[in-house]
Amino acid sequence: KAMATQIPLSEDFFFRQLFDRESCTYTYLLADTNVKEAVIIDPVFELVDRDVNVVRELGFTVKFAMNTHMHADHITGTGLLKRMLPGCQSLISRNSGAKADVYVEPGENVTFGRHQLEVRATPGHTNGCVTYVSHEQGLAFTGDAVLIRGCGRTDFQEGDARTLFHSVHDQIFTLPDNFRLYPAHDYKGQTCTTVGEEKQFNPRLSKPIDEFVEIMANLNLAYPKMMDKAVPANRVCGLHDI
Amino acid sequence: KAMATQIPLSEDFFFRQLFDRESCTYTYLLADTNVKEAVIIDPVFELVDRDVNVVRELGFTVKFAMNTHMHADHITGTGLLKRMLPGCQSLISRNSGAKADVYVEPGENVTFGRHQLEVRATPGHTNGCVTYVSHEQGLAFTGDAVLIRGCGRTDFQEGDARTLFHSVHDQIFTLPDNFRLYPAHDYKGQTCTTVGEEKQFNPRLSKPIDEFVEIMANLNLAYPKMMDKAVPANRVCGLHDI
Ligand SMILES: [Fe+2]
Ligand SMILES: [Fe+2]
Repeated sequence: KAMATQIPLSEDFFFRQLFDRESCTYTYLLADTNVKEAVIIDPVFELVDRDVNVVRELGFTVKFAMNTHMHADHITGTGLLKRMLPGCQSLISRNSGAKADVYVEPGENVTFGRHQLEVRATPGHTNGCVTYVSHEQGLAFTGDAVLIRGCGRTDFQEGDARTLFHSVHDQIFTLPDNFRLYPAHDYKGQTCTTVGEEKQFNPRLSKPIDEFVEIMANLNLAYPKMMDKAVPANRVCGLHDI
Repeated sequence: KAMATQIPLSEDFFFRQLFDRESCTYTYLLADTNVKEAVIIDPVFELVDRDVNVVRELGFTVKFAMNTHMHADHITGTGLLKRMLPGCQSLISRNSGAKADVYVEPGENVTFGRHQLEVRATPGHTNGCVTYVSHEQGLAFTGDAVLIRGCGRTDFQEGDARTLFHSVHDQIFTLPDNFRLYPAHDYKGQTCTTVGEEKQFNPRLSKPIDEFVEIMANLNLAYPKMMDKAVPANRVCGLHDI
């Protein structure tokens, strides 16, 4: 059930969530506290200085600056991070169509120190969307596939509501109910959810597939204002790789 | 050191951070997952509906809607929470000068289920500022005493820089280095820090006392825009107790 036992993080697993108030994007800094190897998920171009600061203060080496997908609402910080942090490589799913140093495929693991993130394909918002899962820590970084009581839009890029529904139900809702989900965005100041909560309370994804498709077809969202700037930049992993 | 071992949260300790993008206030929902008794720290008036929603979905009973101090930058949600959640009582330190159902004094414990928060007096930003400490979980809710790489202003209400310096160094920096600190605000999208990080990297509080007092005297901050509305309302624990 939603309220099952909490899963404690390991003593050597560093976790820090960071927020961009402009695009409402969450960035995650994870590390192995023994060997101090880290990854940054979904960094935002304008906030790279903030992120680099905390990385340097804590003495981490960032192995990968990685994205859950090719974003349309903000410019990724991965290119700039690569410039500022020697040895840092950009990473994204092969299906994203974006350029990066390292491409991952579903089923592979991203490792930093002794920790691992399993790559799960969760297309629907874009073709190349993936979810990164830490089975040991009981958490998953869902990008725009599952948002807290919501989900990413399916009306542009390669969006497809039916595909998104299957991705979420097959790849995310099959995780244990007490796994924490950390999305790429939240617009209401919510920071975290769980598999159990979203299965029960997500106003879109808890519905039958046809109702979900209907809901997604009738959102009437505005054209994303950053899209024409962000997508070309993110295709090459951020401005500083152009 | 800053990078010491992480302290895992207990399996029966529910923790959720919530953010107000308007006033940049953090609200915390904590609960005992067995008996489902909860507390809410520093709720924001405009976001009470969001907070009540998650409380109801998770099946919690909120015992206390509590504040770290009498805020000047946003209107507390405690009065409205009391109306919406039967049995919920407002709680604040006796020294705050605000009206509430329950007054706490330094050294006392706030309990919910089997969990406890120790009340520590940390005046300086206001006279009645307290920090709530969970020794078992290794975390503290510092209000405006310690912010992430910053601290609350000391130039209005009963602010006093020397007092704040002693509060932080005697009551917060004496906690173990790997205790996590959760502040009432952050303006840069940072969500959490640790005692070790702030002792080392806080640009104000890591300085000698005279330098700190000098820094605080020269911030030249604008008059808080919510002050004349927020303080009178918060003195009676929020609009809905007026
Ligand atoms: Fe997206
Ligand atoms: Fe304050």
